[in-house]
Amino acid sequence: MITQAEQRRAQQRAAELLQKTGLAFRPDELASIEVADFGLSELETTGAEIQTLVDTGRLVVKLLTLFPDQTLPEHIHPRLDSYEGKEETIRCEWGELFLYGPGEPTPEPGGRPPAHRRQWYTVWHEYRLHPGEQVTLQPNTPHWFQGGPMGAVIWSITTRAADLQDVFTDPQVARQTMILE
Amino acid sequence: MITQAEQRRAQQRAAELLQKTGLAFRPDELASIEVADFGLSELETTGAEIQTLVDTGRLVVKLLTLFPDQTLPEHIHPRLDSYEGKEETIRCEWGELFLYGPGEPTPEPGGRPPAHRRQWYTVWHEYRLHPGEQVTLQPNTPHWFQGGPMGAVIWSITTRAADLQDVFTDPQVARQTMILE
Repeated sequence: MITQAEQRRAQQRAAELLQKTGLAFRPDELASIEVADFGLSELETTGAEIQTLVDTGRLVVKLLTLFPDQTLPEHIHPRLDSYEGKEETIRCEWGELFLYGPGEPTPEPGGRPPAHRRQWYTVWHEYRLHPGEQVTLQPNTPHWFQGGPMGAVIWSITTRAADLQDVFTDPQVARQTMILE
Repeated sequence: MITQAEQRRAQQRAAELLQKTGLAFRPDELASIEVADFGLSELETTGAEIQTLVDTGRLVVKLLTLFPDQTLPEHIHPRLDSYEGKEETIRCEWGELFLYGPGEPTPEPGGRPPAHRRQWYTVWHEYRLHPGEQVTLQPNTPHWFQGGPMGAVIWSITTRAADLQDVFTDPQVARQTMILE
């Protein structure tokens, strides 16, 4: 959970990074950034700031802001009975992103998950994404990512969302964020 | 058809407009802009410059550049036997776009299709899109659009592409562009 004051502060920091990209936003978009702490109440180290630009029911385009060293924890987009699963393209727009998926573990990776949660990070093949670089992740692929030293603004372009069905490796993670009144 | 010299000139003009947006591109993206004349050999008035950023087979994200007054002719994305049809979100990133779809015709519309092709423009409900503004078009919806006085850079975010199945109102239009050697 986060307090309303923490939420407002994170929204404002994210809006400042988003505006560094030069992208065009409507004022209502900048005023409605979702702050996600993944249920861990450690927003500085585990979390993401999410602005959904398009969500039609068939596809979703979001901009995710990661503060420096802020980590979006390892998870998969599962195949569901009636749905072949969410495919996600991550494209870096600003800053630097450390993205990890299955494959040969990268020696001396740039990303460092929170030490006390290290056990829940099981994939270590690194993609360092700089502006304009992108990776597409198929359904059921474990992945996690972290903002680089300046943070990162990244596109998440996916087939239809089923965020609440995402499966996180860390059993303490919950997709919904409680906001304290 | 267009000549290779026309193609190169249009690619360069489009790259200049794309770079005004501040968006991050890889050099290989700026070097591979598609120039489409829709088979009419009148690129200045009917055409579009297309940069595909993501095409996974399940969804497509493109940036379209329209020069001032350049028109992308009226068409639909049909429902196909095995496919419910392409849904398209148009979001303006830079400049101004005159977009037309079904509905009450707008008096004194800003867009002016090429006069000799005027008969093939049948929908006149206007959406004037400025940066950050967007419209989602369902399959089978006739639509056309034109760059404003400065031109436009717009996002086209769609479910899976079936461009060669698009149905144009003007029978002279062809989706493929012949490039003269």
